[in-house]
Amino acid sequence: MTMTILGYATHAPADDLGPFRFERRDQRSNDVVIDILYCGVCHSDIHNARNDWGGAVYPMVPGHEIIGRVASVGVNVTRFKVGDKVGVGCMVDSCQHCAACQKNLEQYCAEGSTFTYNAIDRHDHMPTYGGYSERIVVSDKFVLKVPDGLDLAGAAPLLCAGITTWSPLRHWKVGKGSKVAVVGLGGLGHMGLKLANALGAEVTLFTRSPGKEQDARRLGAHHVVLSTDAAQMHAINGRFDLIIDTVPYIHDINPYIPTLSIDGTLVLVGYLGGLEPMLNSAPMILGRKSVAGSLIGGIAETQEMLDFCGQHGITSDIELIKMQDINVAYQRMLKSDVKYRFVIDMASLSAK
Amino acid sequence: MTMTILGYATHAPADDLGPFRFERRDQRSNDVVIDILYCGVCHSDIHNARNDWGGAVYPMVPGHEIIGRVASVGVNVTRFKVGDKVGVGCMVDSCQHCAACQKNLEQYCAEGSTFTYNAIDRHDHMPTYGGYSERIVVSDKFVLKVPDGLDLAGAAPLLCAGITTWSPLRHWKVGKGSKVAVVGLGGLGHMGLKLANALGAEVTLFTRSPGKEQDARRLGAHHVVLSTDAAQMHAINGRFDLIIDTVPYIHDINPYIPTLSIDGTLVLVGYLGGLEPMLNSAPMILGRKSVAGSLIGGIAETQEMLDFCGQHGITSDIELIKMQDINVAYQRMLKSDVKYRFVIDMASLSAK
Repeated sequence: MTMTILGYATHAPADDLGPFRFERRDQRSNDVVIDILYCGVCHSDIHNARNDWGGAVYPMVPGHEIIGRVASVGVNVTRFKVGDKVGVGCMVDSCQHCAACQKNLEQYCAEGSTFTYNAIDRHDHMPTYGGYSERIVVSDKFVLKVPDGLDLAGAAPLLCAGITTWSPLRHWKVGKGSKVAVVGLGGLGHMGLKLANALGAEVTLFTRSPGKEQDARRLGAHHVVLSTDAAQMHAINGRFDLIIDTVPYIHDINPYIPTLSIDGTLVLVGYLGGLEPMLNSAPMILGRKSVAGSLIGGIAETQEMLDFCGQHGITSDIELIKMQDINVAYQRMLKSDVKYRFVIDMASLSAK
Repeated sequence: MTMTILGYATHAPADDLGPFRFERRDQRSNDVVIDILYCGVCHSDIHNARNDWGGAVYPMVPGHEIIGRVASVGVNVTRFKVGDKVGVGCMVDSCQHCAACQKNLEQYCAEGSTFTYNAIDRHDHMPTYGGYSERIVVSDKFVLKVPDGLDLAGAAPLLCAGITTWSPLRHWKVGKGSKVAVVGLGGLGHMGLKLANALGAEVTLFTRSPGKEQDARRLGAHHVVLSTDAAQMHAINGRFDLIIDTVPYIHDINPYIPTLSIDGTLVLVGYLGGLEPMLNSAPMILGRKSVAGSLIGGIAETQEMLDFCGQHGITSDIELIKMQDINVAYQRMLKSDVKYRFVIDMASLSAK
């Protein structure tokens, strides 16, 4: 006995998104049914909708920055009750028994975690559909508690943009006295500035565009470095313990390596693909520097991040849109015309 | 009052090496004067002699894998006495006060460590000349003790090939249960196999050439994987905590990344320069994997490695040559025709 849901879907790589009715699974004993209030619009929603990474399954209902209220819970659910404010991020399931899952690293599940959309449920083999919709049904282990006091619309992007920058900050042990840089000031970058600042780090923004200084400082940066300015780059040689590179397209990371301290790490979180031009090993060898990658974060870590944001009053800077404006929003995102995240007010879906 | 020393030098990038008399500095109060018994022949000797990396200063006396006996000590030297068996590696000095030096990471000295040859002494500004010579004068802090029982000729390559593979093994905390792979079976690679095995790791050799299996197993590998064989590579997906890449020329590291475990690191130790083709970030992001570099090791770490080799009876597999055969040795090294390190018997220099 499934339930029929209204959402927004795309049916082909070049199509716009539009209204779509689809089936969600009947609630299982460990499921939480969530009425969706807000859903953030992640750059990867566009990549998936357009099949930029391959593997797209249509119709596709994107959205993995979900905030809502619990509508009902399965008989075995103890951590949530009807009316709770909850979040759902990029994953809705994983194998739960591999080494990664055992270490709360469900995002690196050996069998592949089940993504919130454009995936197949590992139990009933139905497609997963994302947060651009009225309701979602999610296994309780993948539901997050949203702390009191957080603006719910601004909290939505924490579920992807927030955790994607939080996880490397925590994994590489950023705290008071750490020197952190963020490359790129978009959805991920602006969360990186806020979170690194709140963790006590000295925070620098690398940008290629002048004019971002005032906004960067408001968001938490202590310094802004124009990465196209050789003198500015030279002046910060050997500075950073961690650089979080949020740039979502092919780019040259070589200029940033010399700005790492000995044992420093540049971690890529925004771009999946080849890095051009070729990476020069010399500055890495001459200072034991690393280039790493990091994918979102585990569920326990996501809860930790949400609790931290609750304590520090951190949310995303957002522009609230109606569901019907999603295609315009995609166009604007492709021109980097958003500060810093679109969030869909899901009330607009039924209010049409 | 300097001393005149006989060594072998090259005078230009395309020249052969030949006999050369030069001045060594008068012994300072903290200096150790060492009669050189053996000197290993490192691939970087060829790179430097031919000015492959730029910055060559001629005449150049190469050699930084030095084993000898103490001939005399300065008045302030307490750790060494005449007759002690000692070693000198790639560095003979550093600033001693920067953050790196304070952490015993003299190889990453912020002011630049003083290399054993092709450098300028930071006190008297005389050129440094390496181990292809009768004697060397070295600040006591950069002189290593050679434990009893080690074959002295076989110990020479420990000062560069040994420490270059030891340092990443220790930094990335390899021990019992670790899964380590070594790329390339040359001077560095064969030491990597021996040291990783002695540390208790499960050791794999990656090679592009069939026929190395027997030798690799004798040297400490538990497994040998032909990196050109897609099926073999696929079978070890997600296996290694650490891959030490010793390949000394431009090469593609992309095929090795998927064989790293979550949080695994591939560390480059053999090749300074651009890595072609471009590095693909996707498998790094999808498993929080790192690519790093590492340069030789600090002095305290080098002593630790020598003591470990003393306890475990580890030396390099060498082919002992006369000083007069150095140009033939270089030719053979360029064809990888050495198992696994040439070591010069310095007695040959005066016995001519």
